[in-house]
Amino acid sequence: MSISLHPLTGIGEIHPGDDLAFIIAQALTAAGLPPQPGDVLVVTQKIVSKAEGRFVDLAAVTPGAEALRLAELTRKDPRLVELVLAESAAVVRAVPNVLITRHRSGHVMANAGIDRSNTGTGAGELALLLPQDADAAAAALHAALAAHLTPVPAIVISDSFGRPWRYGVTNVAIGAAGFPSLVDRRGDTDRDGRILEVTQIALADMVASAAGLAMGEAAEGVPAALVRGLALPGTPLPAAALVRPLSEDLFQ
Amino acid sequence: MSISLHPLTGIGEIHPGDDLAFIIAQALTAAGLPPQPGDVLVVTQKIVSKAEGRFVDLAAVTPGAEALRLAELTRKDPRLVELVLAESAAVVRAVPNVLITRHRSGHVMANAGIDRSNTGTGAGELALLLPQDADAAAAALHAALAAHLTPVPAIVISDSFGRPWRYGVTNVAIGAAGFPSLVDRRGDTDRDGRILEVTQIALADMVASAAGLAMGEAAEGVPAALVRGLALPGTPLPAAALVRPLSEDLFQ
Repeated sequence: MSISLHPLTGIGEIHPGDDLAFIIAQALTAAGLPPQPGDVLVVTQKIVSKAEGRFVDLAAVTPGAEALRLAELTRKDPRLVELVLAESAAVVRAVPNVLITRHRSGHVMANAGIDRSNTGTGAGELALLLPQDADAAAAALHAALAAHLTPVPAIVISDSFGRPWRYGVTNVAIGAAGFPSLVDRRGDTDRDGRILEVTQIALADMVASAAGLAMGEAAEGVPAALVRGLALPGTPLPAAALVRPLSEDLFQ
Repeated sequence: MSISLHPLTGIGEIHPGDDLAFIIAQALTAAGLPPQPGDVLVVTQKIVSKAEGRFVDLAAVTPGAEALRLAELTRKDPRLVELVLAESAAVVRAVPNVLITRHRSGHVMANAGIDRSNTGTGAGELALLLPQDADAAAAALHAALAAHLTPVPAIVISDSFGRPWRYGVTNVAIGAAGFPSLVDRRGDTDRDGRILEVTQIALADMVASAAGLAMGEAAEGVPAALVRGLALPGTPLPAAALVRPLSEDLFQ
């Protein structure tokens, strides 16, 4: 009845074109974790992006006028800002040292999730974008893993986000497949027969945070974890189901 | 090397004045979970509030002018709004069906965390406030558990919060003792020797979400879980360390 979180060590540096499904299936076998029903495999966006070859050479980026303006405001590299704008649907906040946007996937995060640390290149002039479509990447990984594992684990692709009003990042889900990212409890009653007021659970975000504990605080080094023992309720929903449209935002 | 999450079943309805430490120690023993180093006990705010007797009879609440105004705007019970205002330092957002405030603890949440569902009374006219001081309650529970358990587990008191821009709630920490709620990685380098850009980890929030998986999606019924196998880094910090002052908020 307990849930267990297993870091998947032994995944080496990932390069563009690598077969993630094969590498992960090997790592699960090496870890002595043959698949069980209800397993959820949580993978950091970084290795998915690397396998997709989402590297951009900053030296090849020419910032436009808006990028130059925001770079001066935020004190960031104008080439990085150009990439952020190209990946984003809207700028949420731009002040010194802070550039928060709504990524074209709908997720709101700093720098459109673009990473300059630990891209595995050692060059320092490369940026790593988010996967092209993290839900599609999760679905593709889910399908490819079916050739190696039975039953095939559900997939969650995680990233670490800051939050308004709270210090520190937590891991959240930006992609999912075969997994109920959002679980709707509306209409359920509690033990006293009252209608529950808190009614939608961001299960994929909670699983991403749980897996983050196993991967280590920096999410560097161990890029995947297996979550075992969950009872997965409801209908599979991609991580896009977690995105609340700006027009419905409760906090703004 | 894996982490395990154990729901603590067998904790019955909690009443004002109950000895939570004794009840939890009994539940851990009954569950066959003698304490181990690194254990973290996650407890929902609801049973801490119940043990503190934080019930308020709504029939005895007289709403003031500001509560009446906000109740009309939010279409909420004016007596509930009066309690929310009394528990809050500032109103963050008030629109139909939504009342988000900064609780006097600093945490930003809906309805100041006041709960009308499943207070265990069946009466329907009672509201349950957050613990008087959740960090102090965690410290008191930590100290009281030391009489029953060696080594004594770290304590995290959890609640479920909504978030801007994302559907669904996740569990976060509003109290902690003996636990590094915020882990500072500033200055650490990644595998390429770059300074890490993501540098503060909200470990207590991640642990709260992980425990929430074991407690069940509604956090009803199973009000505590043991998290086992974490390597707890850094200095113990209360959940107050997670509160970002409004003046420093990056998203507004």
